[in-house]
Amino acid sequence: MSDPRNEVSTARREELLGAALELADLCARTTADIVSAGFDVSKKADASLVTTADIETDRAFRNEIAVRFPDMGVLGEELGESNPGTDFRWVIDPIDGTAEFARHLPVYGCIIGLFYKGEPVLGVIDHQGMGVRTHAAFGLGAFTNGQRLVIEDAHPDAGVAEARIGLPSLSSFLSPVDAKAVFEAIVDTFPNFRAYHTCYAHTLAANGGLDASMEWGTPLWDLAATRIIVEEAGGRYVGINEIVDGDATYYSAVFGKPTLVDRIADIVRAAA
Amino acid sequence: MSDPRNEVSTARREELLGAALELADLCARTTADIVSAGFDVSKKADASLVTTADIETDRAFRNEIAVRFPDMGVLGEELGESNPGTDFRWVIDPIDGTAEFARHLPVYGCIIGLFYKGEPVLGVIDHQGMGVRTHAAFGLGAFTNGQRLVIEDAHPDAGVAEARIGLPSLSSFLSPVDAKAVFEAIVDTFPNFRAYHTCYAHTLAANGGLDASMEWGTPLWDLAATRIIVEEAGGRYVGINEIVDGDATYYSAVFGKPTLVDRIADIVRAAA
Repeated sequence: MSDPRNEVSTARREELLGAALELADLCARTTADIVSAGFDVSKKADASLVTTADIETDRAFRNEIAVRFPDMGVLGEELGESNPGTDFRWVIDPIDGTAEFARHLPVYGCIIGLFYKGEPVLGVIDHQGMGVRTHAAFGLGAFTNGQRLVIEDAHPDAGVAEARIGLPSLSSFLSPVDAKAVFEAIVDTFPNFRAYHTCYAHTLAANGGLDASMEWGTPLWDLAATRIIVEEAGGRYVGINEIVDGDATYYSAVFGKPTLVDRIADIVRAAA
Repeated sequence: MSDPRNEVSTARREELLGAALELADLCARTTADIVSAGFDVSKKADASLVTTADIETDRAFRNEIAVRFPDMGVLGEELGESNPGTDFRWVIDPIDGTAEFARHLPVYGCIIGLFYKGEPVLGVIDHQGMGVRTHAAFGLGAFTNGQRLVIEDAHPDAGVAEARIGLPSLSSFLSPVDAKAVFEAIVDTFPNFRAYHTCYAHTLAANGGLDASMEWGTPLWDLAATRIIVEEAGGRYVGINEIVDGDATYYSAVFGKPTLVDRIADIVRAAA
């Protein structure tokens, strides 16, 4: 099956990447302005935190897309879907890591992705509070702050007990489907794990701070930039499953150094 | 038993805190200078990473202590013990989170503590790359970037399943003593955990980004600033055990919101 992304010319991908980086700047400015003015924190239905900065950043992004790309769709964490059914679909999580953002700790990030016929064309993970931005576009490579990223595979003799693996917490494996056996099988094989629970784990996997990382049952926006970044850096991204719960769909994926990704995917399939 | 820290006058504690903050500045400058010049990364005997920045920052700290406080001892991660047996003992981990530091990701920190007759007089956790510094001194309060910290206890009705708990990875519970049962008991009760594996978890516990956090079998320098920061912020710190392995001693502790700390300590004692 041919990759639909080849229908998008290199020049067009470069142009879209340029726009995505400007959109990331817009999101960073919008968030920073609200931080300077002071913001409110409240709890969403799922008990996660949301701030006025999350909502206003999603709105600013969406308004700019409506001006620049009126024919493209947008899915955002805070304000839902606009323009559904279009070939191009932007996906944004304006502030991933709100629990830390709300306490003025900068390990949060803005996630932006653009999909064409369901395949990722570009992605940006911008940790604006830390000055660390990773981006990639199809066929154009992956970069952090201008430095090209290369994910080298694990050495064949490297022990799995030392491998640094990013995981979601056990809670993510408990609902909506009980997959505690998956969690246990992974930590038994990879005891040296980390659990950041923000896109910072994805940044680490792309930049070598983790050998591989995974998400379990997370919304699309949390993974909006990850596959294109990891693949353009030479790593592997394996989608594990899609869990439908009422109106919502949750995704599981493993990404990072190819041999470790394959090993984790095998463990998951055996335990699930 | 009277607290020996009361032998150190308030004026003296203020003076020592001022010195500690200047020492943190010195460490940050030393590290930054080496980053600008470029640094080497190598593996220590325990397979953890060390850079020339770790070693040079430890050395700069130690040299400054020798000038300012020639009668005080120093224990540092990279260069060991100087002047053992003194009443005042400085403890430093120059760069905690070297795996991230080595990849130019700023979620690392410099940890500085000062003990008097074994009790913590002051502590600094300086995430210089993120511009986040938390400090405290006995009787003088705890602060992040000038803002006073107050750890509020968990609401009595708050569910433990939602509580955000920081943990070391399973590897820390596997050696030198097998305490996997402790890990399993904690994650069964607190599935919504995080695992950062740097002093950033301690910063989060002090600043409300985690409800409680813990270390298991870690060297003294990783905990050098934590007890004084958490206690001065109104939280609780419970030392769990000391594990002696050859010449080395490793420490376990739980810290954060009092009722959650007590709950975790009970779980640990029941499972250990």
